[in-house]
Amino acid sequence: MASSSFSATATISSSHHHHQSQSLLFNKPFIHNSFIFSKKSPSLRQPLKLRASASVAPVDQTAAALPLPLPDFDFKDYMLTKADRVNAALDQSIPLAHPIKIHEAMRYSLLAGGKRVRPVLCLAACEMVGGDESLALPMACATEMIHTMSLIHDDLPCMDNDDLRRGLPTNHKKYGEDTAILAGDALLSFSFEHVAVRTPKTVSPDRVVRAIAELGSAVGSAGLVAGQIVDIASEGDEDVTLEVSLLEYILLDILINFEHL
Amino acid sequence: MASSSFSATATISSSHHHHQSQSLLFNKPFIHNSFIFSKKSPSLRQPLKLRASASVAPVDQTAAALPLPLPDFDFKDYMLTKADRVNAALDQSIPLAHPIKIHEAMRYSLLAGGKRVRPVLCLAACEMVGGDESLALPMACATEMIHTMSLIHDDLPCMDNDDLRRGLPTNHKKYGEDTAILAGDALLSFSFEHVAVRTPKTVSPDRVVRAIAELGSAVGSAGLVAGQIVDIASEGDEDVTLEVSLLEYILLDILINFEHL
Repeated sequence: MASSSFSATATISSSHHHHQSQSLLFNKPFIHNSFIFSKKSPSLRQPLKLRASASVAPVDQTAAALPLPLPDFDFKDYMLTKADRVNAALDQSIPLAHPIKIHEAMRYSLLAGGKRVRPVLCLAACEMVGGDESLALPMACATEMIHTMSLIHDDLPCMDNDDLRRGLPTNHKKYGEDTAILAGDALLSFSFEHVAVRTPKTVSPDRVVRAIAELGSAVGSAGLVAGQIVDIASEGDEDVTLEVSLLEYILLDILINFEHL
Repeated sequence: MASSSFSATATISSSHHHHQSQSLLFNKPFIHNSFIFSKKSPSLRQPLKLRASASVAPVDQTAAALPLPLPDFDFKDYMLTKADRVNAALDQSIPLAHPIKIHEAMRYSLLAGGKRVRPVLCLAACEMVGGDESLALPMACATEMIHTMSLIHDDLPCMDNDDLRRGLPTNHKKYGEDTAILAGDALLSFSFEHVAVRTPKTVSPDRVVRAIAELGSAVGSAGLVAGQIVDIASEGDEDVTLEVSLLEYILLDILINFEHL
């Protein structure tokens, strides 16, 4: 009975700790990816209540002495499975329509492989708060379209001047600088259109509008583009190491987001 | 009495004609700007009913013999007044925030003047179907941000290689090619964010989502970017005149939009 009581205390304390770190995570001002679901969604706190009530029942002594066991999770398998779904969705998202050249250039870089870290994180964030991956799949694809746009523009001669990307000629080496710039522009514009058109109707339009606003702010002059501008500004400056440039950007991001609180 | 009867007939006939041409306009598949209000909005047909019933009352003979007089409309004054409002809204839309350089570059081209034809057309389309201009002002600004992006990217050395735009150095001449590309990207991304964040809450989120989808399709690989790709493809081809290139693009636009019907 004493052990059962100890178990209950330990579990509640563990839940409390978990609750705090979860709050911290969701209150962090520079987390951009919590868009589809409300910060105050009841499903966020549901698991805590379940654990507290479960701990009242008698518990196995070994389990009671340890923290709550995590469910079995094969990270590599999760990443690969989700990446496959993202790849299939990306392939369908941009068919080889007229004018052929621009769609070829868009597909060339979008489907050139990669770990699909950003879209998989987007799907995982959706599932973490109890959503089905299909709800976030268009947004997941949008993050990869935007990532691809940033790589195409970043590889240009006036930027990093790279000839190769993932073992293949860069977009401008294959299609010319003008088409590469336009392919990036079309991918960026299409990412927003894709979220607006393809997000399932079961997601309320109000949330879609908010998600599009978050996506825009994550890409624009206070997000991705801000990072690239800081990167350019640090280049050739011998006093600036990579670390300082990164720290400057993170600090900037925090400052900008605190202003918006 | 005879003249009054004739007047009624003439008015109804004129209304009928007006109704037909209005239908044609709104059924054209390549009209992109009818987004905020539904094609079948009852307000579209309201003025016709009003005219038909007004014609039952006795009417001045001179007026009866002529087609319905158009309301007084000073086109130049309308353009200038609306352009002033657009300019004020654009100036407020992108403050000179950190990182300063990218926001300076964005504002440099966005606020460099111009007739603001696209945003004024957007406001006029909204008013034509009975909406208040404030409902369409964020979308109007978005069209100008995107137009500015296309000018910045089009002026680049690998595209048209222009040094001057509206009597001022082009964006890349003033800020460098890398910043000019990023300023264009940020303007494009921000245009969607701006519509999502700033459209008044009296417009239903469902319509905002549809408007964003229309905006994306008007810009992307089947819209503005398609036009530029056809433009590039026609360059240096001696058999292709400007007219043929333009006709090709219009035909393409019609074909693409018929596919979507």
